[in-house]
Amino acid sequence: MVLVRPQLGENIGKAARAMANFGLAEMRLVTPRDGWPNPSAGPAAAGADFIIHKAQVFESTADAVADCAHVFASTVRKRGVTKPVLTPEEAADAIHGETGKSAILFGPERSGLETQDVALARSILTVPIDPDFGSLNLAQAVVLCAYEWSKRRGLAQPPKEDLLPPGPQEELDGLIAHLEHMLEPKGYFLPPSRAESTRRTLRGVLTKPGWNHLELRTLRGVLSSLERNRLSD
Amino acid sequence: MVLVRPQLGENIGKAARAMANFGLAEMRLVTPRDGWPNPSAGPAAAGADFIIHKAQVFESTADAVADCAHVFASTVRKRGVTKPVLTPEEAADAIHGETGKSAILFGPERSGLETQDVALARSILTVPIDPDFGSLNLAQAVVLCAYEWSKRRGLAQPPKEDLLPPGPQEELDGLIAHLEHMLEPKGYFLPPSRAESTRRTLRGVLTKPGWNHLELRTLRGVLSSLERNRLSD
Repeated sequence: MVLVRPQLGENIGKAARAMANFGLAEMRLVTPRDGWPNPSAGPAAAGADFIIHKAQVFESTADAVADCAHVFASTVRKRGVTKPVLTPEEAADAIHGETGKSAILFGPERSGLETQDVALARSILTVPIDPDFGSLNLAQAVVLCAYEWSKRRGLAQPPKEDLLPPGPQEELDGLIAHLEHMLEPKGYFLPPSRAESTRRTLRGVLTKPGWNHLELRTLRGVLSSLERNRLSD
Repeated sequence: MVLVRPQLGENIGKAARAMANFGLAEMRLVTPRDGWPNPSAGPAAAGADFIIHKAQVFESTADAVADCAHVFASTVRKRGVTKPVLTPEEAADAIHGETGKSAILFGPERSGLETQDVALARSILTVPIDPDFGSLNLAQAVVLCAYEWSKRRGLAQPPKEDLLPPGPQEELDGLIAHLEHMLEPKGYFLPPSRAESTRRTLRGVLTKPGWNHLELRTLRGVLSSLERNRLSD
């Protein structure tokens, strides 16, 4: 991630935090407006100080990407440049699909990348934002790119919760029978002509959840509790 | 987007900007720490003032999602919470694939969502971040969810004509309250030290199905029937 002429130290810090969130560590800076190091960057990095401390500063964008094989310019303005325009997703695919170091250039907060910065890139990276509402904040642009990069790395998927499967059908049937047994004396299934469809509706409602055996046990407990006349039963 | 007990006005503004970037306009706030309106929110919104001005404030998370059919809790994986865990991508798919209003809950900057907030949701939304580096900034979490939602907006989803969406959250709450009211005198929530976790378990079991308004009405009828002493009541 290459921040070109960033203005606020706070935004540099936030970009660092966004990178750390998604496992990126190498930040490069091109002539930050307020010099470097910047005392506002550390606090905003919220623990990503290691990225701030390691950040390299360059005199020009060309110097900053000198060792990079793939350069992407993050910008909304195409400036009549005829370069492929990629989404963050497509850029992430490209980065993972190629060998060699990749760089994504981000322009200054207010103005974005200059034409000569964009000229260094082989591709434009454009986040598809609402055309009726202006530009993306610097750290937000960085986080979206870092996120897409990370998604494709494959190791950052959230572990799927070990959800229990639905309990065996006989346990569900036990629950339904228990409830029907309680409802019968209350006249719930009257008149007799409606009984069959009422039973079917009730079974449908209770089948839909796919409750696991623990949940079914909880519900049996609920029914048993409701059956009690008094607390002491 | 529902910000639950947000701390800094600046972050509310940034979340609004992130929403506007991706064409989302409806923000809800649950008891913002510094009151509302907050003078810091507008400047940080950078033009998304229309979202700030329209933001509704609620006294509780339950109130904020009362009219929502689908509630997602944005949180890192909580031990022992047995709900489906979705990526922002999967949540966006779910939101576009279903009918009815959807809400994503975001917790306070420092602490994240409380257990009782998460209990309202049928699914957990977890951004897959680097496990070695802490949490995501509030506005960053919002922008990633808004971005994924927006990406999928263009894609035509086959309308699910036959499936009714889950009933509004307030109808589910009504069912749960009804059942708790019946269980209370039976000693179901004893001992008092276990009451809270018992209530949470019960809510979890009844939240999982995503019952539609007809199914919820059927179940209210079941409870009313069980409350009757005799057939003739």
